[in-house]
Amino acid sequence: MITANENYNKLNASYLFADIATRVQTYQDNNPDKEVIRLGIGDVTLPLPPAVVQAFKTGVDEMSDDASFRGYGPEQGYLFLRQAIAAGDFQSRGADIDADEIFVSDGAKCDTGNFQELFANDITIAIPDPVYPVYLDTNVMAGRTGEFKDGRYQGIVYMDCLKENGFMPDLPASPVDLIYLCFPNNPTGSTATKEQLAAWVDYARDNKALILFDAAYEAFIRDENLPRSIYEIPGAKEVAVEFRSFSKTAGFTGTRCGFTVVPKACMIYTADGAKVSLHDMWNRRQSTKFNGVSYPVQKAAEAVYSPEGQAQVKANIDYYLANAGVIRRTMTDLGFDHVGGDNSPYIWIDGNGRDSWEFFDLLLDKAGVVCTPGGGFGRCGAQSIRISAFNSPENVAKAMARLKDVLK
Amino acid sequence: MITANENYNKLNASYLFADIATRVQTYQDNNPDKEVIRLGIGDVTLPLPPAVVQAFKTGVDEMSDDASFRGYGPEQGYLFLRQAIAAGDFQSRGADIDADEIFVSDGAKCDTGNFQELFANDITIAIPDPVYPVYLDTNVMAGRTGEFKDGRYQGIVYMDCLKENGFMPDLPASPVDLIYLCFPNNPTGSTATKEQLAAWVDYARDNKALILFDAAYEAFIRDENLPRSIYEIPGAKEVAVEFRSFSKTAGFTGTRCGFTVVPKACMIYTADGAKVSLHDMWNRRQSTKFNGVSYPVQKAAEAVYSPEGQAQVKANIDYYLANAGVIRRTMTDLGFDHVGGDNSPYIWIDGNGRDSWEFFDLLLDKAGVVCTPGGGFGRCGAQSIRISAFNSPENVAKAMARLKDVLK
Repeated sequence: MITANENYNKLNASYLFADIATRVQTYQDNNPDKEVIRLGIGDVTLPLPPAVVQAFKTGVDEMSDDASFRGYGPEQGYLFLRQAIAAGDFQSRGADIDADEIFVSDGAKCDTGNFQELFANDITIAIPDPVYPVYLDTNVMAGRTGEFKDGRYQGIVYMDCLKENGFMPDLPASPVDLIYLCFPNNPTGSTATKEQLAAWVDYARDNKALILFDAAYEAFIRDENLPRSIYEIPGAKEVAVEFRSFSKTAGFTGTRCGFTVVPKACMIYTADGAKVSLHDMWNRRQSTKFNGVSYPVQKAAEAVYSPEGQAQVKANIDYYLANAGVIRRTMTDLGFDHVGGDNSPYIWIDGNGRDSWEFFDLLLDKAGVVCTPGGGFGRCGAQSIRISAFNSPENVAKAMARLKDVLK
Repeated sequence: MITANENYNKLNASYLFADIATRVQTYQDNNPDKEVIRLGIGDVTLPLPPAVVQAFKTGVDEMSDDASFRGYGPEQGYLFLRQAIAAGDFQSRGADIDADEIFVSDGAKCDTGNFQELFANDITIAIPDPVYPVYLDTNVMAGRTGEFKDGRYQGIVYMDCLKENGFMPDLPASPVDLIYLCFPNNPTGSTATKEQLAAWVDYARDNKALILFDAAYEAFIRDENLPRSIYEIPGAKEVAVEFRSFSKTAGFTGTRCGFTVVPKACMIYTADGAKVSLHDMWNRRQSTKFNGVSYPVQKAAEAVYSPEGQAQVKANIDYYLANAGVIRRTMTDLGFDHVGGDNSPYIWIDGNGRDSWEFFDLLLDKAGVVCTPGGGFGRCGAQSIRISAFNSPENVAKAMARLKDVLK
């Protein structure tokens, strides 16, 4: 008899964004004349930058010609892209990362979800709260947790991120083996200083722990003192893996490309304490279960690093950050405390005691504005909402005007 | 201390095609003037069909414009593609598969590798020998096998595919839970009749087993009596999942698109014997760990089903099948028994007692022709080689002339 992986039963039955979609659809059905403004899901709205489009088409052209056609590419990604990434995102900032430490993929969701396969099943995992659900759910599916009780999975070390600690988790009181961190943070939009990340790197080194660092939103950092990569911290190469994405950087949410950095110096351990190369393991995983990213997509991603591409990408992010500024000022005027939005597309708003789903319903029903209820990201988000800056300035202005009417 | 998934240690250290690449490189270094002809790895050589290129570019154009830009798409694939697949590949052949039973992905390698995540860890798995290594390796990584001894992983039920049984495995003598089948077969090129597949469907129904059916090469079937899908067999929808790919059909090895069919009627079981929807489980897996295929790539794949696309795809496959015919006739003339090549791009050649790596080295060293040693696919391939028809007619003719010199 073919039996199921029953760990799937532990998962919450419904997915946050599916719940939201249902509520929005119901509202729209009941209010067919009302224009809904979506500031919920973190999806970009601007088209691909012209430099990216041009390279994408050149890639397609190459696939149409005998002489330049490309079949299977390297599972790790083409060297031209890996080199552009290593130089543009790391070496340029003093982080000593080589091209062959970059693994190109079809997105950070896949990589953050799949990476846990490399670890033993009995490790202790520390995960922030609130958090992007993929880190948790993929460990649930793999059987690394107990049941879901009181809003949390048994066996996970949750790290509270609250106003009281500046949305930076405290170092765990008891030792953990694997630590998920994300800065600029999804959902709170908070950032980490070099000193704060250095404390985590020290912790990992002292405890033979590993940090999985999600930097999908690094392109939104405007404060030059903030690190964009964990590899700007000395010693991080031995204890950290970094996930990156072109989704929010260059509008690739529908184009699909990201990458993961696994430094060759990064070691994990057998149960007996012998060192194991994490780079070798991920390479084996990707060679066996993945077949590389579409060649024209890799050409498109490479163009992000051209001078034109860099200027166009920066302009697009400026556009979203200007939206974020409008949202922040509005919420301040309305008396709502918040974090994020200065070096991040997300603004995390304290609901002044309101339940996050109630706040969500209020904004939807009274203002026709869709946000994301913080409770969907974890217990610590139960009284917050996330507003995203991914929309047009016109829609953001309209949405903020409606919020002023409803919340004044 | 962060510990490793030590199941990775059980994997054979080297990967078949990496071994081959090393030997070819060594030969090339020692014989810089000799032109190597590659009939080894199963990678297409013809460029993308014009209808596909045009649709691909239209997709990129849409991504460059505010009004038509697409961000995150459905994790399961766009409905336009799922509908084209359901109609073109299944309903047209009397197989009652709906669009929402199709899950679009970035390739069959990922799907055949990832699908095992849905099952309990203590199931009994039957895998053919010789076999595409991904089925085995991904179960090894997941901890469903013992050590590798005498060319086989402990705990796996190997199903010998030999000349004696027409390269169609016998039904297992003791019950198994999960069965991997691939027709047209990689590596042997053999095919299965409806009656043969029906016996497997009956076996699965009788034993509450599940069949994972890899049909990545179905487009090469020219015999109209042969089934292209397992769903042409009555009752298969309850007990079979089918993997498909645009790689060999339409030259997508570097473009990356495939799909998996998980019928809603297909059930697996809890340890207590309660039914579980496999469709729901795969949907949850894909929603959590995958973010859909690049939109322009999905547009390109849709064009495979247009009248022009169909004609162009057929012409490309005819081109490879003509090569296969030349290879078959040559090997017959040289006195080598073989299977495949009539409804498949692969010809599986009995080495008349020669060890497969010796045969490989002979063809490389004396003829400058690269094949694939059968031993790399399993113990039953130890005296066979695989020759692939993916090359130009000119190169195939040249390679066969060289083989005639060496093997006469």
